[in-house]
Amino acid sequence: MRNIKVVLEYEGTAYSGFQVQANANTVQEQIEAALQKLTKEQIRIVASGRTDAGVHAMGQVINFFTNSNIPAEKFAPALNTWLPKDIRALESSEEDQNFHARFSAKWKTYRYLILNREAPSALLRNLAYWVPDKLDIALMRLGACELVGTHDFRAFMASGSSVVTTVRTVTESEIRTLESEDLIEFRITADGFLYNMVRIIVGTLIEIGRGKLDPSVIKRMLDTGDRSLGGPTAPAKGLYLVRVTY
Amino acid sequence: MRNIKVVLEYEGTAYSGFQVQANANTVQEQIEAALQKLTKEQIRIVASGRTDAGVHAMGQVINFFTNSNIPAEKFAPALNTWLPKDIRALESSEEDQNFHARFSAKWKTYRYLILNREAPSALLRNLAYWVPDKLDIALMRLGACELVGTHDFRAFMASGSSVVTTVRTVTESEIRTLESEDLIEFRITADGFLYNMVRIIVGTLIEIGRGKLDPSVIKRMLDTGDRSLGGPTAPAKGLYLVRVTY
Repeated sequence: MRNIKVVLEYEGTAYSGFQVQANANTVQEQIEAALQKLTKEQIRIVASGRTDAGVHAMGQVINFFTNSNIPAEKFAPALNTWLPKDIRALESSEEDQNFHARFSAKWKTYRYLILNREAPSALLRNLAYWVPDKLDIALMRLGACELVGTHDFRAFMASGSSVVTTVRTVTESEIRTLESEDLIEFRITADGFLYNMVRIIVGTLIEIGRGKLDPSVIKRMLDTGDRSLGGPTAPAKGLYLVRVTY
Repeated sequence: MRNIKVVLEYEGTAYSGFQVQANANTVQEQIEAALQKLTKEQIRIVASGRTDAGVHAMGQVINFFTNSNIPAEKFAPALNTWLPKDIRALESSEEDQNFHARFSAKWKTYRYLILNREAPSALLRNLAYWVPDKLDIALMRLGACELVGTHDFRAFMASGSSVVTTVRTVTESEIRTLESEDLIEFRITADGFLYNMVRIIVGTLIEIGRGKLDPSVIKRMLDTGDRSLGGPTAPAKGLYLVRVTY
């Protein structure tokens, strides 16, 4: 069977997350339904990782096995004829039999958008987290810098998660403003992420930006593993899976 | 009666344009319904201008007269409790009796977003016009420059419109790329716009970017008034009313 890789963009707003679950509309379900229409096969896909309800993707990666003889690069446009408009296949290719969207992933990049202005936004209502209190970006940057390197990130993991190790390597952790000064982007690249890791980091950086927490709290959380030192988990709608590198 | 000005942001996707019309959901209708709930008055609003179905606003301006004693700056947050999430009041103020959102307007700025990449986008599906053919931005800039100044823009007006004069003064007409190189923004400021003027300009600039029309076509259209020399009218969803200056 052929092993096909597809890169996906989606807006998570309408979905109960990525992974198939009973009585819920999920991204995976939509893709598998589109693949069935396209190939007449019952296909189970593998993703680089799940995204939660409301989380978006600019470059989610999936793979699946098929007997279809559709040319590899045609899967993306063909899928788009069956997928809903809030899910788009960006590109597709054939990989060797060992390629696995999750286990072969080397690096992942996420971004988180914060709209920092007094008035709420109609256009970004599902695409950024609105924080009306003025944030000090310089303080947030000091906090973000502390994340770079290999650390035990267990203080940045939702309780109840079970993983073999909570040590991860972060190679990029940056705050910048986009187009307009009131749109703040946090961007982070790591070899893996714990459950809710980016949203707990962002929730903590926001408290730093508000002046409620000192930037040094990040280092203390890394040192002690104490989740309770940080801010609340930031909402899903500001989060985007940007890229998966293999 | 007090004369209240409100600045609005909205996503036009779900609406049949701004202006009230029979059997259609419009932005004006939503705002007047919210004002009625808020003030218990039947209020008719005046806008800086209509926007067509699917066109967005980052800074539409309206005004209305009311006997309500709500503090002027409280109208915006109070309206937001009644408005749908895709319409947000950004700020509100009290103006003198002569202020008129349409007739007092001095300058208006629009922007138009073009997504210029091979793959369509899920996140920008209603917020930008997807053009998969590679566009030459340098050529588009040459065309855009020709628009600056006081000209007869009748070649850039939808047929069937009636106006006293088709002469307008453009003070800004610029092409730039945003965050990512594949997102192209055209921005234009003028003392007024003819019906479909920005969308006809953009449709023409896109044909220039494709190499189908020469940048000199803009000057020829201004000189001859011949609409047929230009490109098609670009779709509504890429267009944003950015700002109205008084």
